[in-house]
Amino acid sequence: MRTISATTLDDIALGAAVLGTGGGGDPYIGKLMSQSALRAHGDVTMLDAAELDDDDLVVPSAMMGAPTVMLEKIPRGSEIVSAFKALEAYLGRPIRATMSAEAGGLNSTTPFAVAAELGIPIIDADMMGRAYPELQMCVPALYGVTATPMAIADEKGNNAIINTVSNKWTETLARTLTIDMGCVAMIALYPMTGKQVKEYCCLGTISILEHIGVTIRAARAEHRDPVEAVREVTNGAIIWRGKVADVERRTETGFARGVASIAGTGEHAGETLRVDFQNEFLMARTDRRVLATTPDLITMLDAETGEPITTENLRYGFRVVVLAMPGDPRWRTPEGLAAVGPGYFGYDVEYIPVEDRLRGA
Amino acid sequence: MRTISATTLDDIALGAAVLGTGGGGDPYIGKLMSQSALRAHGDVTMLDAAELDDDDLVVPSAMMGAPTVMLEKIPRGSEIVSAFKALEAYLGRPIRATMSAEAGGLNSTTPFAVAAELGIPIIDADMMGRAYPELQMCVPALYGVTATPMAIADEKGNNAIINTVSNKWTETLARTLTIDMGCVAMIALYPMTGKQVKEYCCLGTISILEHIGVTIRAARAEHRDPVEAVREVTNGAIIWRGKVADVERRTETGFARGVASIAGTGEHAGETLRVDFQNEFLMARTDRRVLATTPDLITMLDAETGEPITTENLRYGFRVVVLAMPGDPRWRTPEGLAAVGPGYFGYDVEYIPVEDRLRGA
Repeated sequence: MRTISATTLDDIALGAAVLGTGGGGDPYIGKLMSQSALRAHGDVTMLDAAELDDDDLVVPSAMMGAPTVMLEKIPRGSEIVSAFKALEAYLGRPIRATMSAEAGGLNSTTPFAVAAELGIPIIDADMMGRAYPELQMCVPALYGVTATPMAIADEKGNNAIINTVSNKWTETLARTLTIDMGCVAMIALYPMTGKQVKEYCCLGTISILEHIGVTIRAARAEHRDPVEAVREVTNGAIIWRGKVADVERRTETGFARGVASIAGTGEHAGETLRVDFQNEFLMARTDRRVLATTPDLITMLDAETGEPITTENLRYGFRVVVLAMPGDPRWRTPEGLAAVGPGYFGYDVEYIPVEDRLRGA
Repeated sequence: MRTISATTLDDIALGAAVLGTGGGGDPYIGKLMSQSALRAHGDVTMLDAAELDDDDLVVPSAMMGAPTVMLEKIPRGSEIVSAFKALEAYLGRPIRATMSAEAGGLNSTTPFAVAAELGIPIIDADMMGRAYPELQMCVPALYGVTATPMAIADEKGNNAIINTVSNKWTETLARTLTIDMGCVAMIALYPMTGKQVKEYCCLGTISILEHIGVTIRAARAEHRDPVEAVREVTNGAIIWRGKVADVERRTETGFARGVASIAGTGEHAGETLRVDFQNEFLMARTDRRVLATTPDLITMLDAETGEPITTENLRYGFRVVVLAMPGDPRWRTPEGLAAVGPGYFGYDVEYIPVEDRLRGA
C-alpha cells in the first residue's frame, strides 16, 4: 500500500505514453483529469493485488471513445460516480477498489480520478499490459471473465448498466452508446473478485509505468540518451530510425485509424517503414518484411527527447525512433492471438514473436 | 378484474389496428406473440387501474423497433424476463403489474406476452390513447414521469438498464441500442406508482380496443357496413374515400417514413389526399387544405371489409376510407402539442382540432 500524489501521476502518465503504443488517448488528458480530482478530493491509495482479499469486489474503470475527440472534450471523472453507485446496487455489494483497464494511454491514469471521486483505493495492475482499442481485449476475458454487468455514463448525467451474452456484444452496445453520448463516455466494467485480479490481471503495471517515467526524466536530467534509457527499461528493441514522411488518418465508427510512413535514416536509409494504427500502433513493416505486430508493443519516440508520440500528435517531419517490446505471454497463446493478433485487426500476417522476427533479420 | 384469453386477444388486436393509425407495428404480430405466451403460461388477469393500490409499482412494457423489420423478426416475449427481473432488483421492490405503452399497433398486445411470461396482471390502460413512434411521447411524461430507469433486451440475451436526464435522451439511447440489437428489442419503461397510473394514464383503453374489435366482427357477421360501424364506435369522421395511387416509403434511423397518396372517389373525385406517416399516419391534406393532423388520430380502413391498414401493408390500388378521430384532450394542451403536435414531426402546420377543421370545411 502506498499513496499516489499528483506529482507521481506525472511519471505514470509519461510511462503510460510509452506502453500506450501511440494510442489509448493522450495520457496528458488523463493526467490533467486525475490530478484535478486529486486536488479536489486528496491523494489516492494504491494497493498491490496481493493486499486484496480473495472475495473483494474490484471494478476497473476507464474512458471510452475516440482519442481525436477526447482532445476536444475532456471528461471530469465525476460522471462515473452515479453509474458506479448504480452498478454497486445492481451487484448488491460494495466495490472495494477500482483499477486501470489498460497500462497505456490515458486510461492508465483516469481511474485515479474515479478512485479520488469515490474515496476508494486503486490496484497496482491492469487488464492488458498495454493499450488496446476494444473492451473485450482484456486478459481476464481469456479466462472467461465477462465485461458485464458494466456501467457507462456521460457528463450530462445519462448512464446505463449493460448486461450481454458476450464481450463482443458489450463492445458493440457500449460503442454506440459512447457515440450517442458525444463520442466520449466513462465506463466501469469487468467486475472481478480479488482472486480473479490476482490470477488474471497484469500485476504491478502501474509501478512499471512510474519506473519508465522516472527513468526518462532521469536520463534527460543527466544528459544521457532518453531513447536508449526507454529501450533498456522496457526490455525493447529499436527497429527503425527515420523521419515521418506521411500520415493517413480517418476517424471511423469511433476509432482513429491510419498509417504512418517513416522514411528510414542511417542504416534504414532508402527504405520506408509503414506503421498501421487503429487507435494503437499494430503493425510495422517495410516493403520487404514485417518487423513487429500486435500483441507485441510498437511505440514511437521523439529521437531527441525520448518523448513518446501518440498517433494523433504524429506530424510530417518528426524525427522518430520506433521501439518494439514483447507483449504479455498470455496474449501470445492461441486464445490471446484470436483476440488481439494481427488477423483480428484485419492484417493478413502470421504472428511471430518480435524477438524471433528480429533474430531472423 | 377479469381474465383475458387468447380469443379475446383477436378482438383487442383488431381494435388496436384501428387506434394504431397505420403504425405501431402490425397488431397481428403482437397477437401471435401474446397468444403463444398465453398458450404456454395460461390466461392473463386484467385489472382496472382503480384496483391498484396507490403505492403499487407498475412497469409498462413494449416492443421497440421498425415495423418493417418486425415483419421479418418476431420477438418471443421471453427476452424481456431477465431485463424485467434486473429492473425489479434495481428498483428494489416487486413489480405488481405491467401495462401497454400504447393503445394501438402491436404494443397493445405485446404486454400480454410479458404478463404471461412473468405471471403478473396487466392494467386496462395505456400511456398514449393511440400509437406514437417515440418513447417520450407518453401522457405521463407531460406530468414529469420519466421513462427511466428502463430495461431493454434482445432475443440473444443482451440487456441494459438505462438512466437518463431526459426522456428525449432515453429515446436516443434506446433507439441506437435497438438498432444494434437487430432493429427490434423488448423494453420495460416508465416505472409508475398505482397513483400515477390512475392520474396520468389513458384508462380503460384495452377494453375500448376490444369493443372496437367486437363491433367490426359483428357488423361483418350481420352484413352491416363495417366502416360505418368503426366510425360510430370511435366517434370518428370519414374524411376521404379513394384509391391508393402511390406510396413513397423509406426506413431511416429505425423508422418507417413516407407518404401515401389517395386519389379521391365519389365526392372527392379529381382530388388527391396525401397522408404523411412516420410509423403512424400523422397528417392528411389535399393541395387546398389540411384535413387532420396529429395528435388527432388518422386511420385507413379497407372500404369493403373495414379492416384497418398499416403503413407497411399499404399497396397501390387499395380502395380505402380515411377516418379521423379526436386525440386525448391532454395531447391538445400546449405541453401535449409541443410533444406530439405537427411541429414536432417537422410539419409546418398549425394544430386545429379535427372537429373544428371539419366544421370549417
